[in-house]
Amino acid sequence: AMDGAPPPTSPTGLSAYVAVSQLLGLTLLATTGAWLGRYRGGVAWHSPLQFNAHPLCMVLGMVFLQGDALLVYRVFRHEAKRSTKVLHALLHGLALVIALVGIIAVFESHRTKGIPDMYSLHSWCGMAAFVLYLLQWLLGCGFFLFPGASFLLRGWYKPQHIFFGIALFILSITSCLLGITEMLLFKLSDSYSHFVPEGILANTLGVLLVAFGLVVGYMLTREEWKRLPLAEEMALSMDFKTLTEGESPSGGSQ
Amino acid sequence: AMDGAPPPTSPTGLSAYVAVSQLLGLTLLATTGAWLGRYRGGVAWHSPLQFNAHPLCMVLGMVFLQGDALLVYRVFRHEAKRSTKVLHALLHGLALVIALVGIIAVFESHRTKGIPDMYSLHSWCGMAAFVLYLLQWLLGCGFFLFPGASFLLRGWYKPQHIFFGIALFILSITSCLLGITEMLLFKLSDSYSHFVPEGILANTLGVLLVAFGLVVGYMLTREEWKRLPLAEEMALSMDFKTLTEGESPSGGSQ
Repeated sequence: AMDGAPPPTSPTGLSAYVAVSQLLGLTLLATTGAWLGRYRGGVAWHSPLQFNAHPLCMVLGMVFLQGDALLVYRVFRHEAKRSTKVLHALLHGLALVIALVGIIAVFESHRTKGIPDMYSLHSWCGMAAFVLYLLQWLLGCGFFLFPGASFLLRGWYKPQHIFFGIALFILSITSCLLGITEMLLFKLSDSYSHFVPEGILANTLGVLLVAFGLVVGYMLTREEWKRLPLAEEMALSMDFKTLTEGESPSGGSQ
Repeated sequence: AMDGAPPPTSPTGLSAYVAVSQLLGLTLLATTGAWLGRYRGGVAWHSPLQFNAHPLCMVLGMVFLQGDALLVYRVFRHEAKRSTKVLHALLHGLALVIALVGIIAVFESHRTKGIPDMYSLHSWCGMAAFVLYLLQWLLGCGFFLFPGASFLLRGWYKPQHIFFGIALFILSITSCLLGITEMLLFKLSDSYSHFVPEGILANTLGVLLVAFGLVVGYMLTREEWKRLPLAEEMALSMDFKTLTEGESPSGGSQ
């Protein structure tokens, strides 16, 4: 605005979806907190309540923060690409740390109570989601943040990174739903089938998780909402393309 | 080939993915059958085994057939659009009928055993997936098969149809994983945590369901594998566009 140019605008409807996604995300956290606080005695670390840190950390890290990290290219579409990339990596990094705390919580809680680890479909899916998410983060940093990878290599990896990023987000949400189901069957057993309030609340949390995934997924896949290169990036990427692909008006043999 | 033109070719790699997806799909069915046959007494309708028709029908209808219906535009890319559309609708229709049989199985089985309906997160997600899938099928027939909808209306609905189609496929797979978890916790209870073979087998079925979803999802979203309009369709759609959008070289005011 300093140079008198009109402020950049966002595509129609995007802001409304951003608002809905963030409201849904906060509602997810509030609902998880309400479930654990009202019906499961709250959350604490060195205590029999340590287990409860698990669902809270997983919903915060593997769903809310992971989802928001995926959205940064849509939301901060007029910022420089490099800053947006760094924010994307930082949010995923924070999500990974919080998820790790959540995983430690369940392993320590199992050890204290003498419960075996990694036998359930929830644990298989959840652990796969976490390990592959960590791998995807490392690959993303290697390909896109460090200067080593060529333009061509980045161009090849980018669609894979996007596909697996969305797939891991979906697998994370699925793992949460499996965890909710396990926890309700363990803690409520017969009363679950009598529509007790805790069951309804936790089912609602599951529905909210699906809704968050739907809204974020819609925002990510809508063609018109993809981030377009800024004017200065266009020029730069053209230079890069010419350099790396060896294209020249004279048509060199390489 | 009658007119001496070279036979149309498919994009590199697509056939391998088609083969893998179908192998995975058949493995899904075999694994479900093995679980129910080996550990759950098999499947029968007017009997205490009626419940077992539920997982079998849902995996066959809501996963394997739904997935294959999504793939027809990739697999039969050189057939006329109209025939491919009809096949797409027929496969989804067959999936819906089989899923309905599976839903009747669980409701009748619950009634016989005096178990309440629709209290679990599995039932909420599964019923939402089925009802929205039926709705999506009706809308798809209305917009794309019957001649009423205009070119513009179809163009507006198509991206929504594709997004919700993939979303419902994912929700269907998620519902299956929730169902597997419920069934294992009900039937195995404590022995599940001791890594009994039935638990491992059913967990593996869950992993195969995720793998099928990944492979189908990858095939559907890979840009180079999208079905391109055939030569004759290109000409036709240009005519339609000109007719419906009122574009003309003389630039009419409408």
